[in-house]
Amino acid sequence: MKIIIIGATGTIGKHVVKALEPGNEIIKAGSKSGDLQVNISDNGSIKNLFEKVGSFDALISTTGDAHFGPLREMSDANFRAGLNSKLMGQINLVLIGQHYINPKGSFTLTSGSLGEDPVVFGASVSAINGALDAFVKAAAIELENGVRINAVSPDVVEESPDYFPYFPGHIPVSMNRVAQAYVKSVLGAQTGQTYKVL
Amino acid sequence: MKIIIIGATGTIGKHVVKALEPGNEIIKAGSKSGDLQVNISDNGSIKNLFEKVGSFDALISTTGDAHFGPLREMSDANFRAGLNSKLMGQINLVLIGQHYINPKGSFTLTSGSLGEDPVVFGASVSAINGALDAFVKAAAIELENGVRINAVSPDVVEESPDYFPYFPGHIPVSMNRVAQAYVKSVLGAQTGQTYKVL
Repeated sequence: MKIIIIGATGTIGKHVVKALEPGNEIIKAGSKSGDLQVNISDNGSIKNLFEKVGSFDALISTTGDAHFGPLREMSDANFRAGLNSKLMGQINLVLIGQHYINPKGSFTLTSGSLGEDPVVFGASVSAINGALDAFVKAAAIELENGVRINAVSPDVVEESPDYFPYFPGHIPVSMNRVAQAYVKSVLGAQTGQTYKVL
Repeated sequence: MKIIIIGATGTIGKHVVKALEPGNEIIKAGSKSGDLQVNISDNGSIKNLFEKVGSFDALISTTGDAHFGPLREMSDANFRAGLNSKLMGQINLVLIGQHYINPKGSFTLTSGSLGEDPVVFGASVSAINGALDAFVKAAAIELENGVRINAVSPDVVEESPDYFPYFPGHIPVSMNRVAQAYVKSVLGAQTGQTYKVL
């Protein structure tokens, strides 16, 4: 299976690569590293990626930034930083990628537990995660040729200790469990799902 | 109670006005009609509204546009039309309005059932509604001075028959039940909730 992994050298991405490498052709993409470079906030860059890769069987996105800070000081610009990167970056991978993906292929995006289990400072991240979960549920009923789409929604992950103080009472999830949720999405047969890793 | 209703002359807004008019001071705002004009896609216009109104006890938004059309043809620009209007328009009402609202005041936004019960052509509307539901849940834990926030999420409403063909099997909801969900949000005491009207 030919699998594009965006954010392949990131905290989550590198574990997803390791989990899916045996028996598959992995194309690692990143903003600066990997086999191919892509800026997911730039539609021209996304299109260029797909033109270079040609057809593929699965796309996994483990990337995208969003603003984390107090609601009291939050501005439209803070909020839009995440809309442009984590939200529209991932959605544009699907809107554009649907015209390149092989029949029965799959898209797997990354949302996060803040969509339904918020923490202080996380309002814009929560909104973006909620949007992604709703998007995959809706896009799943329109994608053609048996193409599937799911999201993986992890709680704070064990390899991001800088975030632990902002997630009181959350039990950091293991990288293996997170990686396996992407494996489930790609090698399984469900669509329109959000796989929570809590 | 001094209540600002944005979209006060719209399909839903006019019923909300009627339900809350007895005993309250209602300030009707709209893009073209009402007591005051506001363009929710323009932060300057939103700020200007609050400067004119002064402090207030409740803000209800029943407005915001989003693109409805096939995923196969959906573009970044189509998607962003809704992000700029229904999503960021309503969120900016809160980000800016939090600095004007009275203690113990409330914000009530409008999402919609497509956030969790999608229909064909609705992928961008679903994403926006999902974002709004997650946003109110998250913002509720940060708003200060007892200020509350909820969303009302109606299914297709009985006075929008043009949409009925796109909502097969959905039972259009009565305008009275929809209006009462806003009353519940403003006169009740809950926060961080999405009131589904199905």
